[in-house]
Amino acid sequence: MNARRKVYVAGSRPDIQVPFAEVDLAGDNPPVRLYDTAGPGSEPEVGLPPLRGPWIAERGDVAPSRGAGTPLAAANGKPVTQLAYARAGVVTPEMEFVAVREGMDPEVVREEIATGRAVLPANINHPEIEPMIIGKRFLVKVNANIGTSAVTSSIAEEVDKMSWATKWGADTVMDLSTGKRIHETRESIVRNSPVPIGTVPIYQALEKVDGDPTKLSWELYRDTVIEQAEQGVDYMTVHAGVLLRYVPLAVGRVTGIVSRGGSIMAAWCLAHHQESFLYTHFAELCEILAKYDVTFSLGDGLRPGSIADANDEAQLAELKTLGELTTVAWDHGVQVMIEGPGHVPMHKIKENVDLQQDWCHEAPFYTLGPLTTDVAPAYDHITSAIGAAMIGMFGTAMLCYVTPKEHLGLPDRDDVKAGVIAYKIAAHAADLAKGHPGAQAWDDALSKARFEFRWEDQFNLSLDPDTARAYHDATLPAEPAKTAHFCSMCGPKFCSMRITQDLQKYADEQGITVAEAAQAGMQEKSDEFVDAGGRVYLPVTS
Amino acid sequence: MNARRKVYVAGSRPDIQVPFAEVDLAGDNPPVRLYDTAGPGSEPEVGLPPLRGPWIAERGDVAPSRGAGTPLAAANGKPVTQLAYARAGVVTPEMEFVAVREGMDPEVVREEIATGRAVLPANINHPEIEPMIIGKRFLVKVNANIGTSAVTSSIAEEVDKMSWATKWGADTVMDLSTGKRIHETRESIVRNSPVPIGTVPIYQALEKVDGDPTKLSWELYRDTVIEQAEQGVDYMTVHAGVLLRYVPLAVGRVTGIVSRGGSIMAAWCLAHHQESFLYTHFAELCEILAKYDVTFSLGDGLRPGSIADANDEAQLAELKTLGELTTVAWDHGVQVMIEGPGHVPMHKIKENVDLQQDWCHEAPFYTLGPLTTDVAPAYDHITSAIGAAMIGMFGTAMLCYVTPKEHLGLPDRDDVKAGVIAYKIAAHAADLAKGHPGAQAWDDALSKARFEFRWEDQFNLSLDPDTARAYHDATLPAEPAKTAHFCSMCGPKFCSMRITQDLQKYADEQGITVAEAAQAGMQEKSDEFVDAGGRVYLPVTS
Repeated sequence: MNARRKVYVAGSRPDIQVPFAEVDLAGDNPPVRLYDTAGPGSEPEVGLPPLRGPWIAERGDVAPSRGAGTPLAAANGKPVTQLAYARAGVVTPEMEFVAVREGMDPEVVREEIATGRAVLPANINHPEIEPMIIGKRFLVKVNANIGTSAVTSSIAEEVDKMSWATKWGADTVMDLSTGKRIHETRESIVRNSPVPIGTVPIYQALEKVDGDPTKLSWELYRDTVIEQAEQGVDYMTVHAGVLLRYVPLAVGRVTGIVSRGGSIMAAWCLAHHQESFLYTHFAELCEILAKYDVTFSLGDGLRPGSIADANDEAQLAELKTLGELTTVAWDHGVQVMIEGPGHVPMHKIKENVDLQQDWCHEAPFYTLGPLTTDVAPAYDHITSAIGAAMIGMFGTAMLCYVTPKEHLGLPDRDDVKAGVIAYKIAAHAADLAKGHPGAQAWDDALSKARFEFRWEDQFNLSLDPDTARAYHDATLPAEPAKTAHFCSMCGPKFCSMRITQDLQKYADEQGITVAEAAQAGMQEKSDEFVDAGGRVYLPVTS
Repeated sequence: MNARRKVYVAGSRPDIQVPFAEVDLAGDNPPVRLYDTAGPGSEPEVGLPPLRGPWIAERGDVAPSRGAGTPLAAANGKPVTQLAYARAGVVTPEMEFVAVREGMDPEVVREEIATGRAVLPANINHPEIEPMIIGKRFLVKVNANIGTSAVTSSIAEEVDKMSWATKWGADTVMDLSTGKRIHETRESIVRNSPVPIGTVPIYQALEKVDGDPTKLSWELYRDTVIEQAEQGVDYMTVHAGVLLRYVPLAVGRVTGIVSRGGSIMAAWCLAHHQESFLYTHFAELCEILAKYDVTFSLGDGLRPGSIADANDEAQLAELKTLGELTTVAWDHGVQVMIEGPGHVPMHKIKENVDLQQDWCHEAPFYTLGPLTTDVAPAYDHITSAIGAAMIGMFGTAMLCYVTPKEHLGLPDRDDVKAGVIAYKIAAHAADLAKGHPGAQAWDDALSKARFEFRWEDQFNLSLDPDTARAYHDATLPAEPAKTAHFCSMCGPKFCSMRITQDLQKYADEQGITVAEAAQAGMQEKSDEFVDAGGRVYLPVTS
């Protein structure tokens, strides 16, 4: 029996089928439904079915861009974005899907998107996704970065990492491939991904000029963006806030510019002594993104790469510019989120959210960690999960994971899982701290199972059932241990939960409450307890 | 060459030799000194040398308790505690040792101990320790729990875990052994430990009555405490705040009583219908602890074991009682710290510190985690490192680690390391957030090494050099990669740090600053840059 299985909840129309992982529990405990990102499962050679195909078609506002069979684009010059629909008062099937998924009113979803406080990244050329939403009123989301580098990895490996990441809970995946075969790698990832895919187009553009940033141009970049938009990329990181005059602000830093996109654009600006083409052509870029409903992820090219550089002038100057660009994008009907740091000590985290929300007009914040110390390479999933949980609590909408390999090498499959798990913890801890409706039900169900020694229920409710079960079985592998009222951590005599249960059980048998037993004048009941065997430990087999 | 080695810094007298781990760096970068807990290294069969022996003897206030060769005790009825000395205005060698260790004025150390805001756990029968201090003005400390259980483990394994824990940075170790041979296990641990050892004496007392808490008595407990004090236990968890009238408050909880000591005492109170003997005999207990300088760790027997139970009436009622007991202990000259939870969502963490500091008169707070969600068994070192970092930032003085096996089984060697590392991260992140003098120097040195591609320096400065090096080498094992200006994460063309460096280098060669190059009217410099090859990437071999 598989106690954890996929179920679908229907919306107002039969083709809105929202996935959940449902966990059956023992006894009369009701099953628990968990948010599920794993998708329906795909054959890499076939790809996923186009769930959103009919929804996109029936709006009647898109058409093949260059004749039958070519990618879709807006047909009549108007933005085909969820933002445009939301502003027009339309609750799209995508919006209803996320409403069911989040347990929220569809009208709230529409309103949050319409105001720009949330984004629903959903390129019209990526019909395979199960829609999701990123915004501070919703569950905190997690992004996983994957992608080949010039030094290592293959397409098949990266598609596997994408599936693996969504199995463990990644809400979006960024394909940061560099090196050879970027287009083909991305095609495989997009066609098989049940979650929105993000990219950083400047990476591919740079490959097209053999890695020389001074050879980059607006035209080359534009064509790369269109190529990716036609493939179905749902959101794109654009470092349009790295202005020529900000570059010197990063010079005195301990770690200079640590964003790849930021350093590329800084090099271009200095070499050409011109303002960044991403900034000067930003309105044109908005027009392109509006045609496919690609969401902006305005990159923080000047984010701090060390504790010493946190919240400095360079970082904040860029953030202010991102706020200006947000307004421009919104004017073009394009959805926007804002990227944030990076490396930030705990006491400087809140300021990041407060300034971003203020300067960027409450556009969703999407941060990398932040890492709360620089001293633990190989453990930066932990140094950053601390910062991620806190920044999530303060209102960040999506957390970009950091893996144990950060700063050291390209993450492998195990690293991807370690990063996703650490960030699901951070995101859920933030949901609890924000008092997100329903978030605590998961904790309560698991803790109740723990207290009642329903080991299988506890495993099945865990973020990672496989590892929880394996750790338990490492010291008590026998099947009876799965119903034992203790584990090897404390052994039978020292299990406090068991003692508490036994106290309650004794009181129940005696027809009194524990409160009564503790009240003054109940000496005889105490005597009875001692007389009745007096032991609060029952035999192991009980 | 071992770039990371132990050095000793002398105090005002030659026998005060304070250990540090010194890391030599390349070029003209000064070496970095890190706080070091590993001790001088011991042969398990021999034990460590009695560093503090002369200091204890020369105070002339202790004597063998039962003739030559028996354990020491106070000789003249006065407390022989660091608290008593501090109040008398004496800076002991132990205090000077920690002053050097923390880079603080010895008078500050004395003052913090005298007021009770810090403790220096140092039993007169544990001369082997390298003194350390626990208080909010000092570096945040980490405790590692080890110990046999009835189900698993051996003495040799536990001594090895203790050494292993201190190697990775544990500041104190609690021996929570239950089952067989508790006395012998503790003896081996104490004699070999360079850090203070804590215990929970009720565990051994319970073994003496075959696990039946109703058979416990003050006399049996008292004798167990004396036995352990004579062995050299430095601090003891005493759950004296679990009062009879508080037990019913825990009944409606999701997870009842989760402290072993708390549940044992609750069972005793209910069975006997009497107030806890730990509470009624507390003054007598203080007199005993004062004779050996055993520090109280007043246990939180009613701590929450789930998110649902955090900061509830049961927990807070007990905390208030711990505040009363603190005053009693101080009146007897006994050092005190206060234990705290447990499972607490992020938004309820600060209240724990604020109430504890208020009600317990600023006695040091010593918390287990807290875990910020219940849903991730097998990853509770991470769920709790989040809470630990935050509670440390708010003023908690010592963090009790949680390992990946929490709730599932007894931690093995790997779990101990994982727990210690996660908590060293939390503690250091808290030190940074508190602005502890000198804390950021470590981050800055490592980040500078990272930015300058001094890979070996980066590894040697890491919290875990072995794993950092192994992760790097997993994809780029060749020796030249150790000086390469990139890693496999981004590859050579996309290394942002390298691009930034190259920009700086170009500017330096041209005799201009990057700021100048970015200023208006510097077009010719930009042209020069492009003419001069224009590439910001140098060959890999450069």
